[in-house]
Parts: sequence; C-alpha cells; structure tokens
Amino acid sequence: MARNGVGREIPATWKGKPLAPYRDPWSVRPDGDRATRALTRVDPGDAKLVPTLQEALERAGLRDGMTIATHHHLRNGDDVLNQVVRLLQKLRVRDITIASSSIHPVHAEIIDAIRDGTITRIECGVNGIVGELASKGELDCPIVVRSHGGRARAVVTGEVPIDVAIIAAPCCDEYGNMNGLYGPSAFGSLGYAFTDALHARKVIAVTDHLVPFPAAPVSIPQSLVDWVVPVERLGDPAKIVSTTTRVTTDPVGLQIARYAAQVIEASGRLRDGFSMQTGSGGISLAVAENVRNAMRRQKVKGSFGSGGITGYFVDMLEEGLFQALLDVQCFDLRAVESIRKNQNHVEISADTYANPFNAGAVVNRLDCVILGATEVDVDFNVNVNTESSGLLLHNTGGHSDTAAGAELAIIVAPAIRGRLPIVRDEVTTITTPGETVDVIVTERGIAVNDRHPELAAELRRRKAPVKDIRELQRDILRVTGTPRPVEFEDEIVALVEYRDGTIIDTVRRLKA
Amino acid sequence: MARNGVGREIPATWKGKPLAPYRDPWSVRPDGDRATRALTRVDPGDAKLVPTLQEALERAGLRDGMTIATHHHLRNGDDVLNQVVRLLQKLRVRDITIASSSIHPVHAEIIDAIRDGTITRIECGVNGIVGELASKGELDCPIVVRSHGGRARAVVTGEVPIDVAIIAAPCCDEYGNMNGLYGPSAFGSLGYAFTDALHARKVIAVTDHLVPFPAAPVSIPQSLVDWVVPVERLGDPAKIVSTTTRVTTDPVGLQIARYAAQVIEASGRLRDGFSMQTGSGGISLAVAENVRNAMRRQKVKGSFGSGGITGYFVDMLEEGLFQALLDVQCFDLRAVESIRKNQNHVEISADTYANPFNAGAVVNRLDCVILGATEVDVDFNVNVNTESSGLLLHNTGGHSDTAAGAELAIIVAPAIRGRLPIVRDEVTTITTPGETVDVIVTERGIAVNDRHPELAAELRRRKAPVKDIRELQRDILRVTGTPRPVEFEDEIVALVEYRDGTIIDTVRRLKA
Repeated sequence: MARNGVGREIPATWKGKPLAPYRDPWSVRPDGDRATRALTRVDPGDAKLVPTLQEALERAGLRDGMTIATHHHLRNGDDVLNQVVRLLQKLRVRDITIASSSIHPVHAEIIDAIRDGTITRIECGVNGIVGELASKGELDCPIVVRSHGGRARAVVTGEVPIDVAIIAAPCCDEYGNMNGLYGPSAFGSLGYAFTDALHARKVIAVTDHLVPFPAAPVSIPQSLVDWVVPVERLGDPAKIVSTTTRVTTDPVGLQIARYAAQVIEASGRLRDGFSMQTGSGGISLAVAENVRNAMRRQKVKGSFGSGGITGYFVDMLEEGLFQALLDVQCFDLRAVESIRKNQNHVEISADTYANPFNAGAVVNRLDCVILGATEVDVDFNVNVNTESSGLLLHNTGGHSDTAAGAELAIIVAPAIRGRLPIVRDEVTTITTPGETVDVIVTERGIAVNDRHPELAAELRRRKAPVKDIRELQRDILRVTGTPRPVEFEDEIVALVEYRDGTIIDTVRRLKA
Repeated sequence: MARNGVGREIPATWKGKPLAPYRDPWSVRPDGDRATRALTRVDPGDAKLVPTLQEALERAGLRDGMTIATHHHLRNGDDVLNQVVRLLQKLRVRDITIASSSIHPVHAEIIDAIRDGTITRIECGVNGIVGELASKGELDCPIVVRSHGGRARAVVTGEVPIDVAIIAAPCCDEYGNMNGLYGPSAFGSLGYAFTDALHARKVIAVTDHLVPFPAAPVSIPQSLVDWVVPVERLGDPAKIVSTTTRVTTDPVGLQIARYAAQVIEASGRLRDGFSMQTGSGGISLAVAENVRNAMRRQKVKGSFGSGGITGYFVDMLEEGLFQALLDVQCFDLRAVESIRKNQNHVEISADTYANPFNAGAVVNRLDCVILGATEVDVDFNVNVNTESSGLLLHNTGGHSDTAAGAELAIIVAPAIRGRLPIVRDEVTTITTPGETVDVIVTERGIAVNDRHPELAAELRRRKAPVKDIRELQRDILRVTGTPRPVEFEDEIVALVEYRDGTIIDTVRRLKA
C-alpha cells in the first residue's frame, strides 16, 4: 500500500496489474509510441459484409481471454453490447474483458455472463446495477473506471489493447464507411468509436441502416473497418437520444444556477472567445441559460461549446453566441439534427476531446465547465462515481478531464441530497482531485478554492454568498446532522483511474 | 540482379536498401503493425503557435539525416517545400531525405540543395526538371518513385518513417485544427496530408490563414498537430488550382474519347451503381462527357467518382449521376467550392483512397478508370514515369493503384506523340503492369487484353475498331517507322516501386 497524492491508500498491484498511485494532475509524462493495429490487405472483390455477428467474431479470431469494446452512443437504449454478450455466452468463450466506453443499466444481462465466467474483467466505468452488485461483493469481476479522456488514453497508449472493437454504425455501407447522422438509430457524433477504429486489432461495424456504397458523409472510413454486419436493430431509438433536454424548474436548482452564472461573470472570463461545457442535467442547462442571457446582454461572442451537446448549445451556436460546437456525443435529437447540417457543429473523437497524452485536447481550451457531484470534500475533491451509500453507480464521463482542462471548473450541486450533506470531510471516492476544482456552488453558498483569492474577493464585492468550504459544510451539517459513516471491507472491487493512468482511488466492498 | 515478374532486371540492393523484385499485383501480404508516432502531452496553457518555421523545425529536433515530408495539394503553385529547402540550407543540416507526396517543376530550388549535400535522397515521384537532371546523371540523389497508394502504404507500414511532416493548412487555428476549404490558398481536400498527420513523428502546420479557435470544419484535428506556424503565403493561388478544367477540342482526342466511352458501354458496367475515375486531362474529360451523356440516355444512377476531382465530376454529382464523390485532391476551383458545401462530396485520405495494405481502399470499388500513358507495350504494360526520350519526367499518381483496383482500366492515348509510336515492344519504364490493364484505346484502334475475350467480341459486334495489340502496333509503326532505341548506362538513378513495395522497374542514366 502507498498513500497517493490525495491521501488514499493504493495497493502496489491489483488482480495481477501493477498500479501507479496518483500524484498530481500534471507530472506524468508519456513515453513510447501510440498504439497501433495490424496491417491487413483487402483486394478488389473481397467482401466485407458478413451475415451475422457470430461469423464476424469468428473471422476476427474470437478466443478465450480477448478484450472486446463497444461504445455508449446508444446509451441506455443500446442493444449491441447485449447482443455481443449473449453471443459470447452462446459460443462458450471464457475470460473476456469488456472495454466498452461505458456500461449502462440496460446492460444488466452482463451480470449473468460475469457469473458464468464468460466475462471476467471490465475495463470501463459502469452506470447502475453492475456497479451496485460489485459494491455489494456479489460479482467476481474487477472493474477499472476511467474518464472519457482516460479511456482514450488507455486505448491510445496500448494500456488496454482492444482485440475487437464492435462499432454501432447508424448509417453504414457494405464496405464499412459510416456516420452517425442518418438511419433509425441516428445518434449524431461517433466520438467514442474513432479511437477504437484506429487502435483495435480488428474492427466490426454493426448497422441497422445499410446504405448503398458509399455512405456519405464518412466519419469512420472503410479503410479501418474489417467487417460489416447488418442487424435488425442497434437499440431502442426512443432511449438512444432524448427528444429534448430541459432546464430545471426546481427552485433550488435555479438558485444554484444563478449563483454559478454569477461566478462565471465575476471570473472575468465572460468575454469574446468564451468557451464552456455543461452536462445535460437540468441545473447545468439552467446555468447555460443564465450565461446565454449574460452573453446577449454583454454582446459577448463566444468561441465554442464542447462535450456532450444538447439542443441548448445548438441554440447558442445558431444565435451566434458560439462560433462552433465540438461534439463527442449528442445528447438530444436537436443536437443530432444540427450536427447533420451545420458545418460549425464539429464531430470530434474522444482522443481529441480529452486524452491528456496527445498534441492537445479540446478540454485544454475550456474557459469554464459546469460539473455535478455526488459529494465534495473540504479539499475540493469531488466524487461522481459512488453515492454516499458507498455504491458504485456512475461512470466518470468527462468529469476529471474537463476539470483539469478548464480554467474554471465549477461544481454545482444541491447542499443536501436525500437528507445527506454534499460537503464531506472526505468524499467516499475521489473521482476528480481538488487541485483541479475551482468553485463549489450550492444553494446555501459558494466555496472558492484558495487558489483563487481574487475571484472570492470579486464575488464578495458582488454580494454573492461566498463561504469558506468548512463554513459551508458546517451550515449544511446544521440541517442534516453528521451522517453515519458507511463501512467498507478491505476488499477492493474497482479502481478509479485518473486520466493519466495513475490510481486516484479504489472502491471497496460495502460491509454487509 | 533478379528478373522480376514483368521481366525487368532488379538489383538485390540499391544505395544500401535491399530490394524486393515485383512478382504480381496481388501476392504480397503485409505483416506486422501499422506504423505509429510518439505519445506526447500538451497541457492547458501550452502554446503551439510558433513564429517561424525555423523555430518549429528546431523544436521538432531537426538534425542531419532526417526525413521530411510536404504535400502536393498546392501543386505547381507550392511555396512550402521551397521555404523548407531554403531553411534546411540556411541551417546547414545535411543528408535530408525528402518524402513529400510529389515534387513539381516549381521546386527546382531543390536542385541546389541536392548539389550542396543538404538533400541526399528523394522518397517520392518527381515531375519535371529534378527527374530530368537525374536521368542525365547530373544529380547525385537516389529517387524512389511511388504511386499515391504506394506512398500511403510506405508511410503506414513505416517503410518510410517521416520525422517531420509539414502540412500546408489553408485554414488553421493556433491549436492546429485545419481544413483546406477556406482562405486565400484553399485547395479543398487535404487527402495526402492525413496519412502523415497520423504517422509522422512530429507534425507542423503552416498556414497563411490563421482563424480564431476553433477552425471548422476540422479535417485534421489539433490532437495530431504539434506546432502551428503562420507564414505570409503557402504559394501562388493562381497555380494552386485551375480556374477550370476543359474537355479537349482536338479531333484526335475526341475520337479516342468516343472509342473509350464505347468500351465502357460495351463492358456492360454502365448500369446503376456505376463508378468511375478519370484524370483532369482533356481526353479524360471528353470520355467523362460521353459517359455522362450515355448515363443520361440510359437513366443510369451511378455510385461514385473518385480520385482527383474536377468540376466535371461535380456537375455529374449535382445532376444525380453520381451518389457521391470521394476526393483525395481537388483539381479545380469548382471542386473546391463543391467539397466546401456538399455533404456527398467526401474528403478521403490517400490511405483510404489507394493504399493496398488496409481494410479496403476506394480504388477497389471502381468499375472503370480512364488513364493516360507515355507508352504502352505489347504486353499491356504502361509507362507514365519516363518519356520515350528516356527522361524521368512524371510522378505515378494513382495510375497503378486505380489500374489494380478497377474492374476496367482503360488507357487512352494518341497513337503517335511527337512522331513516336505509343505502342512499343517494351516500354522504357514499367509503371503499371499489363496484368492490371484491360484496354488500350487510340484513335487508330482499340486493343483489348486477352483476359477479356467477351469484351473484345462485344466491341466487334458494335463495329468498334478492335485490333490485336501487335496489329495496332504495326499500323502505327507503318506511319512512324520504328524509332531508334534510346541508350542507357547501367547506372540506376531511380527506382519505380509498385504499390505493394516491390520494385517493378528501375530508371537508368541516359547515355550522353
């Protein structure tokens, strides 16, 4: 065990993998080359269309111990990973690692495949039931949770060598040219799939919308795709993208959003060239709404919005408040429509979005990011992976990537959630180190990281409710009381990897 | 010396490089992995904009013996390679290999840098004076001529490891996002540069049109670009793209074009899904004109046009005769305008276009390609690199790639050029093996490769002037007489590499 840079005990190895403890956000420098994939040759007349996923997997040399990846653009409507898992079980392969970009509640079928030994490792974050069971010690399957940029890094460095990437392609031709813009499962940006298309040993496209050659436009080209499999459906279109994402109407959320917008204005960053990322949550969108109004009032011409893109950001693009959107994932149908037609709505890969080990990621250019939290602590460390119950329920997403990249990382969260205080002495799990978190905004006050005394002063000048983080904590605890600590066993069920590949925390089994 | 698959004597090694003699178009299979580039890390606040190309080259670790690449999208208007060469001389580095995608007459400055030892190897085809001097034995600098697909393969396999790629970026931001669509030097597709951006050790963008971050759309992303250098100009816009490309008005050319169109019709391939590539020469465009009329008459809905794209193909796209254009290089302004606005006008990389060692190149999908020749021989081998004078004057372009890929490779050429017969017992230099050439069309008759007896029969049925290739040769020689053979020394001045990396021919020094 070694104590890492945020004070957590990290074992030297886990499940056969040597671990590097997290130090700080910046000091790890990569060496060596980007990973690559095997050369191949496809001649005129060679067909790439194969009738079933089984045949494609067999051609890819499916065998025990392989690492397989899918991508979560279909979100909780995805059926591709489920189809893959059922097939792996049917074919009786063993000891498979799943290195998808994310796992969602819809993938509960995976549990059975873990229990029967088909799947024995998960190299990605998990949303919902799989993490819950792992936390309870009911799954014998190590989990490594990564941010979107961290996953891209792990694939690009070869730390996670993907044997077969299975790419859900909403619009695809028989030679593998694909885009996410058209078809019944159109989800927009193919962001997470690009990195795998370049680095996986074999690449299989699955599509429910096979179009005559050549598909256009081309996001991932034929020259990277080994086989194409037509399937009946990629998933449930109703769950793939929201028809709309909405600003919160909850008064607490609206208050938080007003404070957050005030922080952005006070920071002096709301000037021409301003760039911003928010999630799709109701509070985040309410912040965007306030920022939009401020940009209009002050006639600010922004630079870009990034990350998962909502119709809200599309409106800002169309209104001229942003010059461009850099989109790794479309969050709603309006975003899909926009990326289909607007040249300034740019599809980017997860690598370009957030990988710390390339020639410069988009997150590096952010003025401001609005992020959520399940907990924060008095050192500004943030938890988004576990709930205060200790259950591993959420993937990291771009949280730690954007916090590291943005000049101003603002956490918005209600002070009290399910009767529990948001500010802790120590968060249950550290997802994002406090060193990269600038401001915590609750409806009961704003805590500014000591690194920004000028921002705190300016907020005070503007009569914003700035509080020391411990003062904010005390105010909240006065309402909630001090919660009973959750108890854990020593057993580690998951690693939380920081974006640079070091281990920032572990998730331990809950005491029964 | 070994005799290769087309009967040419190939030495075992040349200038320290072991040579694999060409066997046939299909039997070489690649092994190993695609080449890659070093991992790097760029943090928020790190600047990538550097004031001069000299500083960028120094940051890239410029030293003796390096391999440097530029790209020929600026064609004979390019000033970037000249700026690089002058800088290399000024900085007194030695023994540099130039691995650009092509060298043009405008790059004559390179000659001085070869003579003073700055440049000692050229890993690319040469158009004009550099090859001429090499042929005459006046330059001590080995040259390896490659097709567009062959160059992509050499970069992708790592056979030619590029230390620094210098990409001319018509529209670029300070973080390296770029496209070729906007700016004073807009040339459209960045086709040849993609492969280097993925595989060169270091990537420098030079631009004469620096736009606010982020440039949109993004063809090559920031995550692959190490430095950005603003320069006054990339080249002479008037020479970068033609304002227009025109159908020939020469009666001989028009006759050849009519015959070629007749061949395509007789082949039965002019049906829905038809795909075609032609060059930008007047005869090629006249063939396209005839094919277009036939498509209209027969209400054929084609699939795609590919390669270097002219306004002519844009018209066919807009008329609905093609579903898409797959564009590695825009040949005129109309093509640039089209790729800027039309989603079905798709930018492709040289790798995707023609590399034989990937998961399937665009050339594999061609029904028909119209190609030129300086000479053909009675075995249907084609020369485009040297003239009958023996001088190395032309790069291969996509010639051998498309001939191998297309179902029907049609050579169009006047029977007599400069009083010399087009059909030879043996061509001076074999660029493209006869095994991949299907039909030779001259105004004095059509020769069909023996592999297509049914096509020859159909053409005869249609009263087309089909002749045995030797009969066609005799008819032409009756006019021209038998030309005096050009005499060569034993000394090899250039290799002609086939697209798979084997050596299909050598270019020898002319006898004085």
